Amino acid sequence: MERPHPRPNLASRPSAGILGNERMSALSDGIFAIVLTLLVLEVKVPEAVKSAEELNLALSEIWPKVLGYVISFVVIGLYWIIQHNIFQYIKRHDRPLLWLNLVFLMCVASMPFPSGLIVRYPDAQAPVIIMAAGFITTGLALDLVWWYASTHQRLVDQRVTPTLIKLVHQRLLGDLIFHLAAIGLSFVSVPLAKLMFVLSVGLYILPSRLSAYHHQQTGTSGNAHSAGDEPAE
Amino acid sequence: MERPHPRPNLASRPSAGILGNERMSALSDGIFAIVLTLLVLEVKVPEAVKSAEELNLALSEIWPKVLGYVISFVVIGLYWIIQHNIFQYIKRHDRPLLWLNLVFLMCVASMPFPSGLIVRYPDAQAPVIIMAAGFITTGLALDLVWWYASTHQRLVDQRVTPTLIKLVHQRLLGDLIFHLAAIGLSFVSVPLAKLMFVLSVGLYILPSRLSAYHHQQTGTSGNAHSAGDEPAE
Amino acid sequence: MERPHPRPNLASRPSAGILGNERMSALSDGIFAIVLTLLVLEVKVPEAVKSAEELNLALSEIWPKVLGYVISFVVIGLYWIIQHNIFQYIKRHDRPLLWLNLVFLMCVASMPFPSGLIVRYPDAQAPVIIMAAGFITTGLALDLVWWYASTHQRLVDQRVTPTLIKLVHQRLLGDLIFHLAAIGLSFVSVPLAKLMFVLSVGLYILPSRLSAYHHQQTGTSGNAHSAGDEPAE
Amino acid sequence: MERPHPRPNLASRPSAGILGNERMSALSDGIFAIVLTLLVLEVKVPEAVKSAEELNLALSEIWPKVLGYVISFVVIGLYWIIQHNIFQYIKRHDRPLLWLNLVFLMCVASMPFPSGLIVRYPDAQAPVIIMAAGFITTGLALDLVWWYASTHQRLVDQRVTPTLIKLVHQRLLGDLIFHLAAIGLSFVSVPLAKLMFVLSVGLYILPSRLSAYHHQQTGTSGNAHSAGDEPAE
Repeated sequence: MERPHPRPNLASRPSAGILGNERMSALSDGIFAIVLTLLVLEVKVPEAVKSAEELNLALSEIWPKVLGYVISFVVIGLYWIIQHNIFQYIKRHDRPLLWLNLVFLMCVASMPFPSGLIVRYPDAQAPVIIMAAGFITTGLALDLVWWYASTHQRLVDQRVTPTLIKLVHQRLLGDLIFHLAAIGLSFVSVPLAKLMFVLSVGLYILPSRLSAYHHQQTGTSGNAHSAGDEPAE
Repeated sequence: MERPHPRPNLASRPSAGILGNERMSALSDGIFAIVLTLLVLEVKVPEAVKSAEELNLALSEIWPKVLGYVISFVVIGLYWIIQHNIFQYIKRHDRPLLWLNLVFLMCVASMPFPSGLIVRYPDAQAPVIIMAAGFITTGLALDLVWWYASTHQRLVDQRVTPTLIKLVHQRLLGDLIFHLAAIGLSFVSVPLAKLMFVLSVGLYILPSRLSAYHHQQTGTSGNAHSAGDEPAE
Repeated sequence: MERPHPRPNLASRPSAGILGNERMSALSDGIFAIVLTLLVLEVKVPEAVKSAEELNLALSEIWPKVLGYVISFVVIGLYWIIQHNIFQYIKRHDRPLLWLNLVFLMCVASMPFPSGLIVRYPDAQAPVIIMAAGFITTGLALDLVWWYASTHQRLVDQRVTPTLIKLVHQRLLGDLIFHLAAIGLSFVSVPLAKLMFVLSVGLYILPSRLSAYHHQQTGTSGNAHSAGDEPAE
Repeated sequence: MERPHPRPNLASRPSAGILGNERMSALSDGIFAIVLTLLVLEVKVPEAVKSAEELNLALSEIWPKVLGYVISFVVIGLYWIIQHNIFQYIKRHDRPLLWLNLVFLMCVASMPFPSGLIVRYPDAQAPVIIMAAGFITTGLALDLVWWYASTHQRLVDQRVTPTLIKLVHQRLLGDLIFHLAAIGLSFVSVPLAKLMFVLSVGLYILPSRLSAYHHQQTGTSGNAHSAGDEPAE
C-alpha cells in the first residue's frame, strides 16, 4: 500500500488541498519537544544514599540509563529530521493528511512507554519486540504520509520528481529490515537484537543516496531549493 | 446562544479586530501537544515483576490501557483538527475571542483527568458522565468561538458564507447528541455508553457535508482557498 | 522605576534593537502552554476506592480542586493575554529585553508551586502570602518589560502614544493594590484574602479604559492597527 | 576543532544548504520551554505538615531550592539567549547542522538531571563535577553549531564578518574556564566550586565586547540588521 506509483508528468498534475502547513508543523514540533524532554526523567536522581561513596557508586551504575537516554534521543531526533525533510516538500494539506500525520504523532508520543520498558527490564525479550513493533509502526505511518502527499494526492511542490519519491520510500522502508531482524534475533539473543537498533540509527546518520540527490539539487546553486513557485519552507 | 444568525451581505460587513492569530495558534498547538503527549503516561511500565512470564502476563493485560490511549489521542486530535480548520477562516481577534479560545483550551487541558479516571475505573458510571460532560463543554466552547468570530463579530475572511457558518455549527453541535446519549445510557449500561464515544469519533472521521463543501470550493482549482484578500493560513 | 516618562515627539525617536520577536513569543507561548497544562495534574484521580458509592463521594469532594484549577487557569491565561497584547506593540528586541522577558517567564513558570501550595493547604495563611507575592513579582516584571521597551528604549512601533503607555502601566500596576490587600487581609481572614484574587481577575475581564482606547483606535477602520509601517503582529 | 578559521572574502563565498530554520527554532524553543518549566517541580510542596507553625518552618527551609530554581532558570535561559542570537545569523541548514543542533538540544534536555542531583545532594562533590561537565559539553556543542554554520559551511547571512565569528567563539569558549575551574575547585571546596557557576552567569549577563560589536552595528541606524538580502530573523 505504501509503494509509490510514479505517474508520468507529475509536475503537470494540478495541486490539491489547502496551502500552509504551519500548524501541523507546530503541533509536530511541540510533541517531539515534549517526548525528547521527558526521556531524561528515566534517569532518576539516586535516593536513599547515605555517604559520598554510596552516591559515587550509585552514579557509576547510572551509565546504562544515560546510554539509553542518548540512544532514545537520537532515534526520536531521527524521526524528527525525516519528518522535517519530508515537510519541506509537502506544502498543502487536506483532511486525510491531517489524520495520517496525527497517526504518526501518536506513534511518536507513545515512544516513552517502550523506552521506559527497555530501561526497566534490560534483559527481557518482550520490551525488545514491543520497541521494534513501535519503530515499524512509526516508519510505516510516516511512509504513508509521504505516499499520500506525494502520489495519491498532489500536495507537494513542483520540484518533487519520481526519483525523489522513490528515494524517500527506500529510506523509510529500508529501516524495516533492521527492526524485523531485531524481532527475529530477540528469540536467540536480546543484546544482538538491540544491536540492530544501533545499526539502524548508525546507517541513517551516514550520508545516503537520498542526501546525495538533495546535494546534487542544491550543489550548483545555494538557493536552487527556493527556486520553486513557493517559499522553501 | 450559539445559533448562527446569517445576515445578508456578510462579505460586505467591515472586518473587526486585530489581524494575526499566530500566537493564539501557537498557544493552542502547545497545549494540544502537551495533552496528547501526557496521555501515554497513563500506560505505566509494569513494576514488581520477577520473571519473564510475569512480565509477559503484565504486558498482555495492558491492552485496555493502550486502547484507551488510542481513543483519547484520536478524540483530542479531532478537536485539534476542528480548531485548526476553524482558524483557517478566523483571521482576526479581539479580547473576547482570546478569552473564548482560552476557555476552549481550559476544557482541552482538563481532558487528562476524565481520561485517567475512565482508565482507572473502567466499570463505574461516574467517569463516563464526567467524560461526556467534558466533551459537551468542550464542543460548546468551540462552537461559541465560531459563533463569536463568524457572526457576532466579523473576524473571519471574505470567503466565509452563511452556508459554511451553518455547516460548521452542525458539525460541532451534532456531536452533542452522542454525548447526551452516553449520559443517558450510562444509567443502563456503561459499555453501551462508551460505545457512543466510539460512534461519535467514527462519524467525525467519515467525510461529511462540510468536507464536501470544502471539497467543492477547492476542487476546481487547487488554490481557490488562497484566492481571498488574505493568505490561506 | 516603572513609571513611564512620556517624552515629546515619541514617534520621531529612532527605533532601536533588532527586528523580529518570533522566538521570544514562541518561548513564551511554550512556557504558558506547559504551565497551563500542568495545572490539571493537581486534580488527582481518586485512589484506593472500593465501591461506586465511595467513588462518587470522592469525586463530589474534588470540586474545590476543580475550582482551584479554573481560577489558576484564568489567572495565568490573563498574564498570557496581557503579554500577548503588549507584544503586539513591541516589534524589536535587544539583550536586556530578552532578559527582562525571561525574568517574567521565570515568575510565570514558578506559578505551579504557590498554586499547588494553596490547593494543599487551603486554610493556611502562608500560601496566600506567597501567592500574592508571586502575583506582585510577575506584574512588576511585566511592567518592567513594558517600561523598558516603550520608554527606556524605543522597541515599539510608531503607533504607541504616551496615552497608551500610561494606560498599560495603569492596568499592570492597578492590580498590585488587590494583591497587597490580600497580604494585609490574610492576617485577618484567609477566605477574605482569597476573595481579593477573584476580584482582581474579575476586574481584568471587564472592559477597561485601555480596551476602550484600543477600540477607539480600531473602531473606525478594521485594519487601523496594521496601518503602520510594520505588520500588526 | 571548534577554532574558527576566518577566510578572506567571506561574504563572497556562495551560500550553502536550504533556506529556512523555522522548525529547528520551533523544536529548540519547545525543548527550552519544557526544561525551564520542569525546573520548578524540584521545589516540592511540603507534605505531612500538621500545624501552621510546621508549614511556616517547612517553607522557610525551602529557600535553598528556590535559589537553585532561579540559578538553573538563569543558566538555561542564558543558553537560550545565545542560541537565539546565533540563529539570527544562521539562515540556512543542511543535514549535519540539524544533527549538531539536536546534540546541543540533547545536552539542554538533560539539564534537569544534574540540576536535581545538586539540589538533592548540596554538599557532595560528584553533582558539581557532573554539572560542570554538562555545562562544558553544552557549550562545546553550541560552539560546534556555530563553527559548522559560519566557517565549515556557509549557512549564515552576508553580514557575518570574521570579527563576529571570533567574538562569538570567545564568548562560548571563555565560559569553559569557569567550569574547568569548578571541577578543579570541587576537590578543595564544594561551595567555592559552586561560586564558579554564579561567576560564569554573572559575567555573561554583563555587557561584553560582543554586545558592543552588535551595538556598534545597530547603533547608527535602527534597522541596520535587516538591511541584508534576507529578513533579520
